[in-house]
Amino acid sequence: MVHFVSGTQQTKPQHPAADSALVRACRREPVPHTPVWFMRQAGRALPEYHKARNGVPMLESCFMPELVTEITMQPVRRYGVDAAVYFSDIVVPLKAIGIDVEIKPGVGPVIAEPVRSLADLDRLRVPTPEDLTAIDAAVRLLTAELGATPLIGFGGAPFTLASYLIEGGPSKGHELTKAMMYGAPELFTALLDRIADITIAFLTTQIDAGAGAVQLFDSWVGAVAPEDYRRYVQPASAKVFAAVASRGVPRIHFGVGTGELLRDLGEAGADVVGVDWRVPLDEAARRVGPGKALQGNLDPAVLFAPPAALDAAVQRVLDQAAGLEGHVFNLGHGVPPNADPGQLARVVEYVHEHTRTGS
Amino acid sequence: MVHFVSGTQQTKPQHPAADSALVRACRREPVPHTPVWFMRQAGRALPEYHKARNGVPMLESCFMPELVTEITMQPVRRYGVDAAVYFSDIVVPLKAIGIDVEIKPGVGPVIAEPVRSLADLDRLRVPTPEDLTAIDAAVRLLTAELGATPLIGFGGAPFTLASYLIEGGPSKGHELTKAMMYGAPELFTALLDRIADITIAFLTTQIDAGAGAVQLFDSWVGAVAPEDYRRYVQPASAKVFAAVASRGVPRIHFGVGTGELLRDLGEAGADVVGVDWRVPLDEAARRVGPGKALQGNLDPAVLFAPPAALDAAVQRVLDQAAGLEGHVFNLGHGVPPNADPGQLARVVEYVHEHTRTGS
Repeated sequence: MVHFVSGTQQTKPQHPAADSALVRACRREPVPHTPVWFMRQAGRALPEYHKARNGVPMLESCFMPELVTEITMQPVRRYGVDAAVYFSDIVVPLKAIGIDVEIKPGVGPVIAEPVRSLADLDRLRVPTPEDLTAIDAAVRLLTAELGATPLIGFGGAPFTLASYLIEGGPSKGHELTKAMMYGAPELFTALLDRIADITIAFLTTQIDAGAGAVQLFDSWVGAVAPEDYRRYVQPASAKVFAAVASRGVPRIHFGVGTGELLRDLGEAGADVVGVDWRVPLDEAARRVGPGKALQGNLDPAVLFAPPAALDAAVQRVLDQAAGLEGHVFNLGHGVPPNADPGQLARVVEYVHEHTRTGS
Repeated sequence: MVHFVSGTQQTKPQHPAADSALVRACRREPVPHTPVWFMRQAGRALPEYHKARNGVPMLESCFMPELVTEITMQPVRRYGVDAAVYFSDIVVPLKAIGIDVEIKPGVGPVIAEPVRSLADLDRLRVPTPEDLTAIDAAVRLLTAELGATPLIGFGGAPFTLASYLIEGGPSKGHELTKAMMYGAPELFTALLDRIADITIAFLTTQIDAGAGAVQLFDSWVGAVAPEDYRRYVQPASAKVFAAVASRGVPRIHFGVGTGELLRDLGEAGADVVGVDWRVPLDEAARRVGPGKALQGNLDPAVLFAPPAALDAAVQRVLDQAAGLEGHVFNLGHGVPPNADPGQLARVVEYVHEHTRTGS
């Protein structure tokens, strides 16, 4: 059962993770050490993950609360990261409302009936609490086990979900998506607005069940020119951030190749802007402007370099982060499927050891 | 037979294309109209291309001078573009020296024995004029047919070719490439230096046979952080540009997702810096600095929008280019395989009509 918490509630108890390094860094408060987590830390590279999933199809696994809990906890146990990230996929809320979607191994999400017209929007209803029962249950199991370690809730941003829905699957050039954006802007913005409502339901379910922060993933938004982003995309992302604002948990926003969009992504309403490895963090801070924390930005490919080169690259990120108001250490993109877990553990240890502030 | 022209030659006749709109724009001289060409205009989207190649494997076709000439001329005839671009592939010089490489449809270049050690460099010898006889012949046929219309010669930049050679094929994350860059920097820079020599032979053959400009493609360099680019990559690209400088044809440099590298790409020695659609051209000019022309940057996805939206997007590029020292109109990336040739013709017509300067 989902409990929607009213924003005007009078006596809100402190969130168990409110004093964690991750939440403090997101809020630009002093931290005992720079917090670390890795996008895609749950699943993919971990042998214990493949053992746990044991042939269960990806999207089915996302609706099995005990399995989600186990997979989400695995990297916390192994790496000692400062946060768990909810094991899910950005198309899970679409699956929850009955959209015919599956994740094809080696391909990605494939949508049987793409969205091409206003009539297609009727299929995109906002999930009810009943649709999201498994999500609510998994998050409750997780946050009970995690205690003071925050769980980062997870949702897909309107542009990226729209691209999957319009193209019918992953796309390099997003041709159909942009053809709709330029050629049928009213349909395009109506679609993004509808997706925003779906994502709001997905994220608020996670927050109300105990998530201590949320990240809105806009994987593909780096393909959009800045002017188009502000005109066609930002309003829908801003709607998501505004809708969860009253719940008081930090809001992280991330996309790949977004050097030109960093300020706009922050202005959509994020507390923390994720940065990939192309833009050094000090330059990213200039672009984003004051009042935001940054997350990032070790090149995931460095995980394949020898340990000494890995240490040097981690130190370079820390050096570039020295003047930030708040810094959450992360990769500049997801953990590669063939990454060595030992290298990831080394990164966590290095960051903690080299950023620890006495006491 | 290749004729290498000495840089100190006393009475160099004017190149037939020296007064073309393309060459003038590259030199930041006044132009009768903004010149237009499209990366990947030869091949791919044109039905007459598929008819002409008629089942000949891609790399074989690149060594057939008459076929190369026909394919290279097709878009000039159909679109009225201001330049031809030599139909080839960046792995052609590797094939010419006997490397086992093929282009797998839907995949890209696949290298049978990847480069992983210093000993592997021995296989990467610099092509002799005899290795490049077919290239020389094709360019001579082409420039005779083109007359005052410039042929843009074509070569792969060291980083991108290194990525193919190290990974053995296309790579999303360039993990092995970066592992070598960070973990074995001496091997990595020796490899890039060797590739530079190979590319120099490929480009000078084309220039000496009549190419009126050259473009060095660094397709994947946008995956490299700026500091790493300057340290590990730029010296090899600079070697290529320096080696062709004395031949006096404009040198264009292009990569995708290079917003953070624009100044560095220019400083490697290019006369013209290519820009993808993510960075508006006026902002790109600020980053590149004075003394360079810019090329770009219509989002190829806009080709799938209705004509009125296409026109508006082309006009936006022209507006953003208004203050440039020199502008070559192009897409921000290659022509998509399923693009409508009618839309490309429309772009050429629009640009010519809206930039024509009396007389």
